[in-house]
Amino acid sequence: MNNSTEDPDSATPAPTPGSRRPGGRTARTRAAVRDAVLTGLAEHGYPSLTVEYLAEHSGVHKTTLYRRWGSVEGMVADALDLAGEDEWTPPDTGSLAGDLRALAREVVEGFRDPADAAAPTAFVGAAFQSARAADALRSFYGERFSRCEAVVARAVDRGEAPLGTDAGAVARAVSAPLFLRLFVTREPVDERLADQAADATLAAVTAGVFTEPTGRSRTAGNLPAPTPREG
Amino acid sequence: MNNSTEDPDSATPAPTPGSRRPGGRTARTRAAVRDAVLTGLAEHGYPSLTVEYLAEHSGVHKTTLYRRWGSVEGMVADALDLAGEDEWTPPDTGSLAGDLRALAREVVEGFRDPADAAAPTAFVGAAFQSARAADALRSFYGERFSRCEAVVARAVDRGEAPLGTDAGAVARAVSAPLFLRLFVTREPVDERLADQAADATLAAVTAGVFTEPTGRSRTAGNLPAPTPREG
Repeated sequence: MNNSTEDPDSATPAPTPGSRRPGGRTARTRAAVRDAVLTGLAEHGYPSLTVEYLAEHSGVHKTTLYRRWGSVEGMVADALDLAGEDEWTPPDTGSLAGDLRALAREVVEGFRDPADAAAPTAFVGAAFQSARAADALRSFYGERFSRCEAVVARAVDRGEAPLGTDAGAVARAVSAPLFLRLFVTREPVDERLADQAADATLAAVTAGVFTEPTGRSRTAGNLPAPTPREG
Repeated sequence: MNNSTEDPDSATPAPTPGSRRPGGRTARTRAAVRDAVLTGLAEHGYPSLTVEYLAEHSGVHKTTLYRRWGSVEGMVADALDLAGEDEWTPPDTGSLAGDLRALAREVVEGFRDPADAAAPTAFVGAAFQSARAADALRSFYGERFSRCEAVVARAVDRGEAPLGTDAGAVARAVSAPLFLRLFVTREPVDERLADQAADATLAAVTAGVFTEPTGRSRTAGNLPAPTPREG
């Protein structure tokens, strides 16, 4: 997160019009503001985040912050955009069962240490107050989940998943029971729950639940259900 | 929500020590404060909620609010406790497949109208700022999900679910992909996604994923997976 030697310019297209110039200074400024946003969110939460705080902690002048990002909202959204510009790729364990368990365990692992959990949790919380943060969060997760297409493509190749399985739905399904507990019901998560989320997703994939409809309507006919609704 | 003729005293045990007295006046005061909290959360969100706002909108004097609830946090938590004191029971359609789809569609239906969605969404958002709101939310959902034990018990009786299926895990599984999109990834939900969440949960139930461990360790041996991890 705080790797100051990274150079987002090299890997990614410009995310915000006007926010990027040739050379590394803009990238360094952007990273400094991002770090200040993460620290501020983690320590105080979105409602307490001010331009004054971000100027002090980033070492970037308030005037520059206002000119480049417009508002705290803009800085939070850009920090999230920057967080999405990493090199993360989904696990490749050799089986869909293994990949799903590894994905779910990454979620649990990422939230085990409260210090690691604070900033991502605050991003999710910020979206309740800021439409721009909500947009940035949607983009972040959309892009992150789309990287899981590789997992499903390999599974289809190996015959573990039906052709046409919706990778985005699979990626959301394996994360959802963990995110539900972390962000909504406020319950603890652990490896057992990670494995359960993975195994549930695998069962649904195998049953064809995530197969995109191709001309036919999606009905219970896909399912291994022993009893139809009106039966 | 604003049914002023309701009498929570008749149906439920006292949720907060000292907050309930014989007769209806306390119940009416509590309901008035609850309504003000819901309106305030829906219109302004948790960070903007003040005792002044709640006094004005409930018609209850600030001194009384402070004495009885201590703080805005206390009023939010109590409003959530009161929301949990309803008569909701899970659907009973005659099959597990039908009950799960009905449960998932209730979630989608409950968030279709932004006016209906605002207060519950703000409760979830408040938990990012308030530990008391987070505790109240955990209790609310824990109790709500526990009512779904009837769904799973009927399914076990009908032979649709294995004996020992964890009803709490099933209830969370069917809600999770929808709550993920509503509260985390900020994506739209619809009937198709509700049915997909229900069908995925049904497939996992059928595969025994939610069977509580009874002496044996939980392994991929429960699953219909074609390829074991190291295979």
